[in-house]
Amino acid sequence: MIHETVVTTMSPEGIVHVAPMGVVADARTILLKPFRPSATLDNVLATGSAVVNFTTDVRIFAGCVTGRKEWPTLPAEVVQGARLVSTLAHCEVRLLEQRDDPQRPQLLMQRVHEVRHGDFQGFNRAQSAVLEAAVLVSRLGMLEPRKIAREFEYLHIAIAKTAGDAERLAWRWLLTAVERHHPGLLPAAVSGDAP
Amino acid sequence: MIHETVVTTMSPEGIVHVAPMGVVADARTILLKPFRPSATLDNVLATGSAVVNFTTDVRIFAGCVTGRKEWPTLPAEVVQGARLVSTLAHCEVRLLEQRDDPQRPQLLMQRVHEVRHGDFQGFNRAQSAVLEAAVLVSRLGMLEPRKIAREFEYLHIAIAKTAGDAERLAWRWLLTAVERHHPGLLPAAVSGDAP
Repeated sequence: MIHETVVTTMSPEGIVHVAPMGVVADARTILLKPFRPSATLDNVLATGSAVVNFTTDVRIFAGCVTGRKEWPTLPAEVVQGARLVSTLAHCEVRLLEQRDDPQRPQLLMQRVHEVRHGDFQGFNRAQSAVLEAAVLVSRLGMLEPRKIAREFEYLHIAIAKTAGDAERLAWRWLLTAVERHHPGLLPAAVSGDAP
Repeated sequence: MIHETVVTTMSPEGIVHVAPMGVVADARTILLKPFRPSATLDNVLATGSAVVNFTTDVRIFAGCVTGRKEWPTLPAEVVQGARLVSTLAHCEVRLLEQRDDPQRPQLLMQRVHEVRHGDFQGFNRAQSAVLEAAVLVSRLGMLEPRKIAREFEYLHIAIAKTAGDAERLAWRWLLTAVERHHPGLLPAAVSGDAP
C-alpha cells in the first residue's frame, strides 16, 4: 500500500529540500524510493536522515510539480532535517539499509520520532483531484493530450463541488502548467469555479 | 469545502445507523444535510445528537452503497449515540439549529466532544478511487453506462498501483454492484489486481 507524503531532507550545508513521494510504511519502518539523481537521495545518503510529512495541504503537491519548491519548515526535533509547517503529523526517520538501483534506489528508513500537529478532517474529493492532476502534470511530456484533457474534465467536477481555497489555488497552478505545455487544450469549463 | 465523513446516529430505541455524508465544518460547528426521508434525519431530530467520524476506512463508504450497513461501533462518550471503531477521530455533536427543506434539511450541529484514535498516514490514491467509485455506484441508475465504464477504467489504475487489502476488498464490492446492474459492462482489466 502506497501513501502519498512529502519528504523533507537537508543537505550537509543545511539547505532544505521538499519532495512529494509515495512511500510504503509499516509500524517500524518507511521505505523511500527516490529517483537517481535527486536531492532527496543525495541528502539521505549524506545525513542518514529524513522527515516524512503526512500532510493534506495539496498546494505542496501541486506546487512542487509546477516549480514552487520552497515551503515553510521548522527544524526536526531529533534528526538532522526539517519538517513542514503545514502538516497533520511528521515522522523523523534514519537510514537503516539501502538497496542500490540504477533508477530508484530503495532506502529503508527507521521511524525514530513522530509528532502530531493537526487533526484529519475527513476525505476531501478536491484534494484527491489535485493529487491526481499533479501526477498528470508531472508526466505532461509523456501523456497523450487527449488523455490529459479527458482526465482534467473528470477531475474538475470534484474541484467545483468540494474544494476550499487551498485546493482551488493548487488547481489553478496545475491548469496553468497544462496551458503552457498544450495551449488551448483545456476548455474554460475546467477552471474549477463553482457552476 | 466539503469533507466526506461517516455520520453515526442512534434511534430512541438504541439502534445505530451508519451513513457516509459530505459535511461542511468549521471550528465550532458541523453542517449535516441528510436526505428526507432518512434514518439519519429521524435520529438527529429524535435524539438531538450525532457523531461525525473522520475515517479513512473506505470499506465503510463502499459497504454502505452496496448494502453492507452494519459496522462495529462503540458508545459515544458524551452524547446519545455511537462512534465507529475504525476511525482516525470522531466528533460528537448536538443539534443547534435546523432549516427545513423538502429534500435536504440543514442540521447545524455544535461540536461538543472530540477524540483522536489513530494517525493520518498520508493520502492514498486507492482510497480516493474507492470513494469516487462509491459515488458512481450510488448513482448507477442515473448515469450512462459508458460514463461508468470510462471512469472505472481510469480509477482502477490507482487501485492496481497503490491499494492495500481494505481498498481491494472495497473495490471488489463496487465492481460486483456494477456487474449486477450492467452485466458485462466492465472489462476484466479493471479488477484491481496488480498487473
